[in-house]
Amino acid sequence: MPVLRLALAQMNPTVGDISGNSGMIVDWCHRARDAGADIVAFPEMSLTGYPIEDLALRPSFQEASRAAAEDLTRSLGGQGLGNLAVVVGLLDRREPRQRTPGRPRNDPLNAAWVLHDGEVRGRYAKHHLPNYGVFDEYRYFVPGDSSCVFRTGGADISLAICEDLWQEGGPVSRVRENKSGLLLVLNGSPYEHAKEDIRLDLCRQRAAEADCPLAYVNMVGGQDELVFDGDSMVVGADGQVLARAPQFAEDLLVADVEVAPATADTRLADSGEVIVLTPAPRPGTLAPLAAAPKAPQLSGDAQVYAALVMGLRDYVRKNGFESVVLGLSGGIDSALTAAIACDALGESCVHGVGLPSRYSSQHSQDDAADLATRTGLTYRQIPIEPIVTQIHQALPLAGLAAENIQARIRGVILMGISNSEGHLVLATGNKTEISVGYTTIYGDAVGGFAPIKDVPKSAVWRLAKWRNAEAVRLGLTPPIPESSIAKAPSAELRPDQFDTDTLPDYALLDDVLDDYVEHDRSAAGLVADGFAPDLVSRVLGLTDAAEYKRRQYPPGTKISLRAFGRDRRLPITNRWREHPALDP
Amino acid sequence: MPVLRLALAQMNPTVGDISGNSGMIVDWCHRARDAGADIVAFPEMSLTGYPIEDLALRPSFQEASRAAAEDLTRSLGGQGLGNLAVVVGLLDRREPRQRTPGRPRNDPLNAAWVLHDGEVRGRYAKHHLPNYGVFDEYRYFVPGDSSCVFRTGGADISLAICEDLWQEGGPVSRVRENKSGLLLVLNGSPYEHAKEDIRLDLCRQRAAEADCPLAYVNMVGGQDELVFDGDSMVVGADGQVLARAPQFAEDLLVADVEVAPATADTRLADSGEVIVLTPAPRPGTLAPLAAAPKAPQLSGDAQVYAALVMGLRDYVRKNGFESVVLGLSGGIDSALTAAIACDALGESCVHGVGLPSRYSSQHSQDDAADLATRTGLTYRQIPIEPIVTQIHQALPLAGLAAENIQARIRGVILMGISNSEGHLVLATGNKTEISVGYTTIYGDAVGGFAPIKDVPKSAVWRLAKWRNAEAVRLGLTPPIPESSIAKAPSAELRPDQFDTDTLPDYALLDDVLDDYVEHDRSAAGLVADGFAPDLVSRVLGLTDAAEYKRRQYPPGTKISLRAFGRDRRLPITNRWREHPALDP
Repeated sequence: MPVLRLALAQMNPTVGDISGNSGMIVDWCHRARDAGADIVAFPEMSLTGYPIEDLALRPSFQEASRAAAEDLTRSLGGQGLGNLAVVVGLLDRREPRQRTPGRPRNDPLNAAWVLHDGEVRGRYAKHHLPNYGVFDEYRYFVPGDSSCVFRTGGADISLAICEDLWQEGGPVSRVRENKSGLLLVLNGSPYEHAKEDIRLDLCRQRAAEADCPLAYVNMVGGQDELVFDGDSMVVGADGQVLARAPQFAEDLLVADVEVAPATADTRLADSGEVIVLTPAPRPGTLAPLAAAPKAPQLSGDAQVYAALVMGLRDYVRKNGFESVVLGLSGGIDSALTAAIACDALGESCVHGVGLPSRYSSQHSQDDAADLATRTGLTYRQIPIEPIVTQIHQALPLAGLAAENIQARIRGVILMGISNSEGHLVLATGNKTEISVGYTTIYGDAVGGFAPIKDVPKSAVWRLAKWRNAEAVRLGLTPPIPESSIAKAPSAELRPDQFDTDTLPDYALLDDVLDDYVEHDRSAAGLVADGFAPDLVSRVLGLTDAAEYKRRQYPPGTKISLRAFGRDRRLPITNRWREHPALDP
Repeated sequence: MPVLRLALAQMNPTVGDISGNSGMIVDWCHRARDAGADIVAFPEMSLTGYPIEDLALRPSFQEASRAAAEDLTRSLGGQGLGNLAVVVGLLDRREPRQRTPGRPRNDPLNAAWVLHDGEVRGRYAKHHLPNYGVFDEYRYFVPGDSSCVFRTGGADISLAICEDLWQEGGPVSRVRENKSGLLLVLNGSPYEHAKEDIRLDLCRQRAAEADCPLAYVNMVGGQDELVFDGDSMVVGADGQVLARAPQFAEDLLVADVEVAPATADTRLADSGEVIVLTPAPRPGTLAPLAAAPKAPQLSGDAQVYAALVMGLRDYVRKNGFESVVLGLSGGIDSALTAAIACDALGESCVHGVGLPSRYSSQHSQDDAADLATRTGLTYRQIPIEPIVTQIHQALPLAGLAAENIQARIRGVILMGISNSEGHLVLATGNKTEISVGYTTIYGDAVGGFAPIKDVPKSAVWRLAKWRNAEAVRLGLTPPIPESSIAKAPSAELRPDQFDTDTLPDYALLDDVLDDYVEHDRSAAGLVADGFAPDLVSRVLGLTDAAEYKRRQYPPGTKISLRAFGRDRRLPITNRWREHPALDP
């Protein structure tokens, strides 16, 4: 049986940066050739970045993507890489154009092109367009309708893109009939906690159905609220993992895979033709690879923490920033956010600001300073009391309206520092408080990015402990002060205030929210599950009413099934309240 | 030929307020019965409101919607309205449930039910699901797959829902085969400038294809960024408009329509059966209606202004507010916004605040006070200078960072008033400045709603003049001071500042933006059209870079094809710049 040397380039493209991405692809091709690869495959939409949203509909962007792929194949040919079969993902356009009412205008295709010998030899378009959760591909693409099989090194290789693998039918179902030696799948599959096992099971199932090995190449890196975790792999027809790349890191996964030889008379099931690049196996033998790499899997907390670090780093850098500024209250949320920021960008790029009011306790100020010392981030303190006093002279306020003034003045100062010094402001809110609207719009919700927006409060504590334990394990200073972890949470906007004055205990609150938000459980169902009716009514009432606040919160890295915004989309004007059914 | 008396209830439901909407439906049914109607039809999703976004996926909401429709038909029967055929739109669920991967969970249907004699007699589900522009219905619904024809008053009536009318094929294409006497279409069709002519042409075309009259009932009212304009109508098979309801007002359109009689042996093209409510025409004769109402069409500016008034009124009231607060600078944007707010809510519910800084000119302060006098809104002045000074003592800033402080302190004060007095804050930005990012995030972008967010600056002036002329025509005081219309626009954040220091002339800017944003024109295309390359580069550069600011801007009534947010969705992290192609 022929042996193909596959290279899967788990790359981190930037949306819209076609020339930058193209340059990266050339670099990876050189590395693949140096490793002796026959084929190098890149992720879904690797040339344009992913997801590109309405850019898909712009003719100028479509043309730029296609032209870049044509330039790329010429350039690879000119650099002596013409013998390498290169499969890239890009935005293509259906030709001839069909003006079908209600379908995406200008016929965009989510495509994979096969580049070889200085030419574009094969063109494939994704058949199954996901339109659920974070995906809106019926809006952005028209579906492809034919298979693409190319022959290289004496073996036939079938192409598919991401959702094609998840749905029954379509090109994946034809691989066995087409007697391909390999199924190659280009992916832009975002991270979600515990998804990596589902992916592996799926690859095993489809490899068995296709009766050939399956190579799965996924993107890595952050894009707005999504983070792609990589986890590229090669799985045998028998379900064995032949090679696996790490999560949350760029990587070139190289593996030698035994494949069934192509037969001369292959006719494709949907009557297309095999695209012949090189009909016979490569002459001579390559020095065998050392054992194929199989990256160890990360623990749950390590995965989530790595996702948060990568999501923040890429959001900051891909948006042209180098540094961040955030308010340090001494509490656990800002402490964890600061630790993530230091890990993502280096402590010299993290600017903490203490913004004490008359209600800020000494222990809070001490904890903020301690965090700065532990992490090495740059720290300054700007007391807000004189400004708050001045505002109350102009506009006397009491109660919640007065409390919010403090949070908003902090926002004004952080934005002033950002505008003046060029740091991106980080909001430090967690998923629990954002769920129930326990946040001040234009106050603590100020920022360009909210790293722990999708992390429930219970997980904030868990991740803080995990991060400190990692430091201890490595003989380093734990970044987060123990007292920030241990003390009772308080917004410190009035004397002796504690979160539990307003909210239920966080462990209980997170249980209710998990069932309600992540699992669509009804109010009646929650009561049937044993939660107290008044607790259910209170939590669901707060959550149902907080949509506008949630919408105004900055974006943050998604790690769960139902991150606010991309995964859970509700009207602002909405009188539906899940809980009144409980009232007499 | 039998004559059917149709009533089309152009109602204004609220999303999620199932019991409130149900109560309204009962009231309209009484009015329809009092008018002698055989049939009363309500808009798409009238029972739940529309669009309900992810609420469609929640089993508890699905059950509430179905139960409310069942209660409704029993209640109508109990109130002596059982003889009336009532067609309502609601959220239904496909039974039996099919767990198809990638399809909307819990099988939601966008449905129309036929209620008669205390029972649910007919069930129809929308076939064609729009997934472009403001629509995401592949996310929210599974498609229906069979026709629904019911017989009442001796005629057969075929049902369709909104997009079914716009797409070829499906139930509308079978109406002629089924020999129906009437095609009844339930709609949730949002307003867009000049769409009403397109709608009329479509109704005429489909009535001719169906070879029978077509009754089109549309929703009215604001829902988040959408405003539904009504414009319900009945069109004959020959294309004649038999009756037409006004735009932007609730209405019961009643019309007598001659229809072909049902034949006893009708078999439906897709093998379903006709649902027989009343097989024969109603005995006796009704007093004939006076001439069927044909509402006059509004002019372009009158339509847009009415849409903005209705969009604001419904956003405020449906979100539980009664009043609004906004900053009055003396400029045209805040003046037009205040005029719209007074027309929407009454001047006693509109609170204007002058927030002068050291750079606010006397003429600006005079114009703001003049506006208050002209409209009768409540006005107060809070100078911000002492607060700005205090902030500069804590944090010395210069340039843009210092300018932004003034805008942000205004935001803090408006939010303080809002929190304290319960008014919703209105942001007063226009589409032009939001397009190019000429706005201060957390400053003038503060607010719960932005009434003129989708109105280009050129149209702001045009609408202001139109509104004043309307007042003159009616012998009333023009609300907007002439000097607010006439003077050169300035943000007044530094001495002698004018918008044209930073931006091109607004007429030219709006031309470029219209081509780029509304019509997908490329940079190269704009230059070919004759715009100066440096102008194109500058405008497109600003627009491409402003996505985060646009996302953080409050929602506002959509009046154009490409309103930011719902209609034009771009990634924040996006390195694509349309203009570099122009650089050497």
